[in-house]
Amino acid sequence: MAAWSERLAGVSGVLLDISGVLYDGGEGGGAAIAGSVEAVARLKRSRLKVRFCTNESQKSRADLVGLLRRLGFDVSEGEVTAPAPAACLILKQRGLRPHLLVHDGVRSEFDQIDTSNPNCVVIADAGEGFSYQNMNKAFQVLMELENPVLFSLGKGRYYKETSGLMLDVGPYMKALEYACGIEAEVVGKPSPEFFKSALQEMGVEAHEAIMIGDDIVGDVGGAQRYGMRALQVRTGKFSSTMGPQEPLPPATSSLPRRWCLLSSLSCLPVPPPACPPGCLRRQPDLPCTSPASTPHCLRDQAEGRAGSAAAQLALP
Amino acid sequence: MAAWSERLAGVSGVLLDISGVLYDGGEGGGAAIAGSVEAVARLKRSRLKVRFCTNESQKSRADLVGLLRRLGFDVSEGEVTAPAPAACLILKQRGLRPHLLVHDGVRSEFDQIDTSNPNCVVIADAGEGFSYQNMNKAFQVLMELENPVLFSLGKGRYYKETSGLMLDVGPYMKALEYACGIEAEVVGKPSPEFFKSALQEMGVEAHEAIMIGDDIVGDVGGAQRYGMRALQVRTGKFSSTMGPQEPLPPATSSLPRRWCLLSSLSCLPVPPPACPPGCLRRQPDLPCTSPASTPHCLRDQAEGRAGSAAAQLALP
Repeated sequence: MAAWSERLAGVSGVLLDISGVLYDGGEGGGAAIAGSVEAVARLKRSRLKVRFCTNESQKSRADLVGLLRRLGFDVSEGEVTAPAPAACLILKQRGLRPHLLVHDGVRSEFDQIDTSNPNCVVIADAGEGFSYQNMNKAFQVLMELENPVLFSLGKGRYYKETSGLMLDVGPYMKALEYACGIEAEVVGKPSPEFFKSALQEMGVEAHEAIMIGDDIVGDVGGAQRYGMRALQVRTGKFSSTMGPQEPLPPATSSLPRRWCLLSSLSCLPVPPPACPPGCLRRQPDLPCTSPASTPHCLRDQAEGRAGSAAAQLALP
Repeated sequence: MAAWSERLAGVSGVLLDISGVLYDGGEGGGAAIAGSVEAVARLKRSRLKVRFCTNESQKSRADLVGLLRRLGFDVSEGEVTAPAPAACLILKQRGLRPHLLVHDGVRSEFDQIDTSNPNCVVIADAGEGFSYQNMNKAFQVLMELENPVLFSLGKGRYYKETSGLMLDVGPYMKALEYACGIEAEVVGKPSPEFFKSALQEMGVEAHEAIMIGDDIVGDVGGAQRYGMRALQVRTGKFSSTMGPQEPLPPATSSLPRRWCLLSSLSCLPVPPPACPPGCLRRQPDLPCTSPASTPHCLRDQAEGRAGSAAAQLALP
């Protein structure tokens, strides 16, 4: 594997997907993916800016951060870009009153939103809430509107829980689009506006940033289209559906064919830590003059995966 | 409105959709659409061949026919072309063992089908059976198959019950297609194979047949693509969503722009009855020499809808 300084030259910010990269959800809240707690800690010690960019729409940001902290991650609410708060901003700006088809866990994010006499529909990963009755109600609300507006918090196809693959909000978005003959507005990855706001909050330009996720469409494709670089981890939904040599499923065949694969976040080569006070280094790719440095992960080299056709970094 | 003999010259067989044309489903089985019982009786007395061509997939043919007979219709099981029996034929021919996501009411149609160790998925209008759990199970079965095969009994967007519009199987087909990155095989209208089998069972060629339904995609579009003529009734789902002057919803914009609209089946101009024994008529468009004749419905003329741009018959 090429050196960090060569492959990620100019990168100053990392956007980290959460589900499938940091942890797999499931019974009891889920489980951290091996090595990811330490990897986040290393990243935060490095000179890189780090932000969490998730399409999680079953939980409020507060609940999500609480769960991650219990699993050992160093993360705060202010470091997370999530679709529900972004949707609230849009609803307020456009004076829209949503009918909500969302999980109870995220409903509190909409506490300040007027939901009376709805003139649009917002769907999120409602899980068991995607009953026929609830879907039909959302459909009927849309059909009664002169100009039906549907917001979908993300459009992921599925995600991995510890018990197996689970349908995400995307399939249900497609169902309502087809039923009503409309096109949804996606709030979340891969929407360019969503990446834009995450980067603004991190204070990094697109060409200086890399997205790390397990979703080839939402994370890799979306980031690349917005001018960022992208790494796909082999954890989360990736590990359940595609081996390294398998072709992309048909739904993703329009995506760029070159991107970087990484066994897991724990294998991310991390640059030297930010220089402590007193360090005289001025050029960012030179080693820090401080005696301490973070060891790079060597697992990918050891597994012999470097150099394969799939393991090329796609520059935007 | 032009005379029957002019507008439907050469038509010798009529395919009738059931839901939205004969009756609207709902509480207590639903209700016959005004005048449709008598219209079916008139058609059956005429010289035309009549067959019922439905995408109904919540009920077995036996249950559907029982319901229709209770509502007063003259119909027998052998006159109905429905997707579940057609799907069983395909499953047997191809040696496939389905995982079924169907309504309990239609499950008996699959009694002779091996459903052990499934190597495909069949979905139908499952109604409340479209729970998140059931959808996720179908998704997981498909994702575990090397070559996932999904059959959908119809792909209707929605239908009308007495209580309002209801999501049909189509949106759920789209959801699974998107989730798995596959394309479903549709068994039912508008599949050409389905029209073919209905016409074969009726003994009429496509150019001699007309389809009457309330669904612009499944009935009108499908029939026209198969070389048939088509009439769309303004009952069923049509009456809830489109006035005569409203444009087609975006999802159907690729369809032919010319087809014939009819207020309801009760307004169908019916040709003279089949000639009784002893009649000397030889040319089919001449009046029967028998003294009795069936009066034509004049309601469309009375409403002044004839001659509008939308009310043109699209010849294949």
